[in-house]
Amino acid sequence: MSAYRQLVDRFKQISSIRGASAMLGWDAETMMPDGASGVRGEQLAALAAVAHEKITDPAISDWIEEAKGEGLEGWDAANLNEIERTYRHANALPADLVAELTKATSNCSHVWQAARPKDDFEAFSAAFEPVLKMVQEASVAKSEALGLDPYDALLDEYDPGMTSAQIDEYFGALQDFLPDFVTEALDYQEKNRSFSALEGETPTAKQEELGKKFMTALGFDFNHGRIDVSAHPFCGGVPGDVRLTTRYNETEFSQSLQGVLHETGHAMYELGLPEEWRGQPVGQARGMSMHESQSLFLDMQLCRSDEFFAYSLPVIRETFGVGGETWEAENFKRSLLKVERGLIRVDADEVTYPLHVMLRYRLEKALLSGDLQIADMEAAWNDEMKKSIGVVPDRIGNGCMQDIHWPSGIIGYFPTYTIGAMIAAQLFDTVKNQVPTWADDVQKGDFSSIFKWLRENVHHKASLYSTPELITQATGKPLDVEVFKKHLQTRYLGA
Amino acid sequence: MSAYRQLVDRFKQISSIRGASAMLGWDAETMMPDGASGVRGEQLAALAAVAHEKITDPAISDWIEEAKGEGLEGWDAANLNEIERTYRHANALPADLVAELTKATSNCSHVWQAARPKDDFEAFSAAFEPVLKMVQEASVAKSEALGLDPYDALLDEYDPGMTSAQIDEYFGALQDFLPDFVTEALDYQEKNRSFSALEGETPTAKQEELGKKFMTALGFDFNHGRIDVSAHPFCGGVPGDVRLTTRYNETEFSQSLQGVLHETGHAMYELGLPEEWRGQPVGQARGMSMHESQSLFLDMQLCRSDEFFAYSLPVIRETFGVGGETWEAENFKRSLLKVERGLIRVDADEVTYPLHVMLRYRLEKALLSGDLQIADMEAAWNDEMKKSIGVVPDRIGNGCMQDIHWPSGIIGYFPTYTIGAMIAAQLFDTVKNQVPTWADDVQKGDFSSIFKWLRENVHHKASLYSTPELITQATGKPLDVEVFKKHLQTRYLGA
Repeated sequence: MSAYRQLVDRFKQISSIRGASAMLGWDAETMMPDGASGVRGEQLAALAAVAHEKITDPAISDWIEEAKGEGLEGWDAANLNEIERTYRHANALPADLVAELTKATSNCSHVWQAARPKDDFEAFSAAFEPVLKMVQEASVAKSEALGLDPYDALLDEYDPGMTSAQIDEYFGALQDFLPDFVTEALDYQEKNRSFSALEGETPTAKQEELGKKFMTALGFDFNHGRIDVSAHPFCGGVPGDVRLTTRYNETEFSQSLQGVLHETGHAMYELGLPEEWRGQPVGQARGMSMHESQSLFLDMQLCRSDEFFAYSLPVIRETFGVGGETWEAENFKRSLLKVERGLIRVDADEVTYPLHVMLRYRLEKALLSGDLQIADMEAAWNDEMKKSIGVVPDRIGNGCMQDIHWPSGIIGYFPTYTIGAMIAAQLFDTVKNQVPTWADDVQKGDFSSIFKWLRENVHHKASLYSTPELITQATGKPLDVEVFKKHLQTRYLGA
Repeated sequence: MSAYRQLVDRFKQISSIRGASAMLGWDAETMMPDGASGVRGEQLAALAAVAHEKITDPAISDWIEEAKGEGLEGWDAANLNEIERTYRHANALPADLVAELTKATSNCSHVWQAARPKDDFEAFSAAFEPVLKMVQEASVAKSEALGLDPYDALLDEYDPGMTSAQIDEYFGALQDFLPDFVTEALDYQEKNRSFSALEGETPTAKQEELGKKFMTALGFDFNHGRIDVSAHPFCGGVPGDVRLTTRYNETEFSQSLQGVLHETGHAMYELGLPEEWRGQPVGQARGMSMHESQSLFLDMQLCRSDEFFAYSLPVIRETFGVGGETWEAENFKRSLLKVERGLIRVDADEVTYPLHVMLRYRLEKALLSGDLQIADMEAAWNDEMKKSIGVVPDRIGNGCMQDIHWPSGIIGYFPTYTIGAMIAAQLFDTVKNQVPTWADDVQKGDFSSIFKWLRENVHHKASLYSTPELITQATGKPLDVEVFKKHLQTRYLGA
């Protein structure tokens, strides 16, 4: 067997083990009785240890070197690159550090969960200190192994090929634009976009029915996936068996519905990855920015367009058996496009959301480099919030302690939310140009032309290209902040 | 670290990997969308391969030898014995044979599923031939590795310590007794036990409610388990996270209810295993006969007793909102204790069930030894059915092709059903003597005294003793066919 073939077999095996973990992770959030968390933890730890053994096997390094001389081309060559990248990430950190970091982040997430509602920064920071210290160590180790700056070395795991230099450029342009734009959009909203709260009942069973109707219409394959309920919605499972979740709020159905559409975007990406490369590194989704672009393509672009409302609103009214003035198109749309200066990222609208993200990006870079001390986090956060979004946290639980990312040791992930939003805008802009029937199709509830385009230009490409290359190939140009700005202006200023 | 400690860690890891497989197996039967079976198969194969690597690691053999000199006692000594037995079973078969057998049984089960409804013996036997040949090879290999007769070597995996010599003795006595007894019981039934079909509706939602009520009353811990629906009811998961299933038949609620009680018996055993030995071979349930004794203790002994009916029938009537003559105690009881000469094992009552099992035991021993050829299976089966149960299959799908065991390569398992039934009778007989309040307790719906006894005498003993030792310790004497016969006589002849 060739060295490359050995690698293919090995990574297929690792993928299956990780796939098993993904299914158990889904089960833990949806089906598992509470008392089983200890047993489940042991199962997941055992699988993680086995996957780690398999990927740090020194034979892999030899196979990689040998495979480089095998004259691979196209997908195979790209697969070998991804294999090497994955191998380097896995082997960059000493086993002790991985084990210690796992323990520390598990502890810190736990502490955070209890400390946040009590605004207990002392408890949080005591648990976060060793986490940050070890993430710093990890970033230095990865920096050496990958030949990247420490922050970029972390970022590379979530978004290969993206660098903080690029992000600085995108975010610089956005930061120049957004604060004033928020003010403009709020003025415009106050003058032109008042709306009344939607009236009538939207019971959970009907919300579930509605979500499934839209999923089916969008092309979600229930033969290869399902939807359930969890405390925090997510898209889990594996390509070929996608498990997405939502939660239902009887007094605000759009939260659940947009959540379902968002996770369906993630799911369609996973389901659309090329079957022939399943289980191989090159067959995986291309990083978290691209993944977020697929969820936001549905949630924020397509499914908040007038064309989508023309299709969806009659379905919504019929499913709930509601009607009257508050359910007229204009009022409904305004209720879904409300802009607000808020404290909480996960509740933010698409205009203010990037400001939340960019603030975190600046602070986490400073935390990683040591320019910002944990003791000074709150002051820095509040100061940035005031400047950027114009509000100051009423309490620290609604401030720098609100997200689970840092307590989990996740630094380098936040930017992908906003890069994803920008990609989504650029993809939708391209679809509008390249799929002439899109508007008619969508109004009729036919999404096949749009997904055909997404499949061909994004999903089927998997990890064949880097994120920047993929964007350029799909949209004809590099990621362009102007497209996103234009989208916001059109939608929120009626421009 | 001592050699024994190394073994403990290794077997804990193997147990976690197998536990992960068990959860995925449950998911495949209850939650997984059909299209995902291929991906799931790859995940399960990867986990099986990893578990196999871990258990065939040559280091284990050295650790076992070294640990034997460490002066272990009690549970640790028993654990070392179980570790060695598990290791020997896993290492008895060459890897090639395991892989080939897995493929052949997977194919044969698949072929069987399609061939049975079509009575296609030709297709079945073609697929079964290589399976039988490899099981014969496996039995010889295990025979050499374990120092047991070939059939006993297979049996040892399902019921350690049980031998075909012992089973021959038990089954000989039962076979002498049962055929005539069936005739007597049927006569008695015809003369004294006519009943009317239960009237009224028993919708699925109410059946589910009822099942959960009884599970709760029996002490099932929903914080460490759950119940769902599957095509074939089973008790899956792991101790600490038990997943049982049932199916609902709106026109015959007792099928589902007795199924729930049966699986709850299995579940209570798993949940009652000693927590401090979880993940170790000695901490596992003591074989399939003992496991079946726990399900039949509920299904056939306790939950078909007059004392249980006194508690359960009012609950059943109230839950369904039914009443009238057909729901009076005597009529209800007769409907649940009906004896019948039938063709199908899984539909058989407790009187004829052992005859189905003993027939299979005789035939599978003959198939394994080569005394019976596959081509002669049907004739032998029909002949035995006529002699033993007094009915002849109308078609082969209701005859020698009815069970999934043989197509799955499972030989040596069937006897455990009837050994389990005998153990159940003997345990309940002992409970009646040793738990003076049992009858009053049960009539009040309080099962704590009975489960306290089962926990102490069976569940908490896990695999500390062999099955025969465990029976003797719990009931004060070796397994005794007379107890089972007496139970049948009392229940079915009113003796």
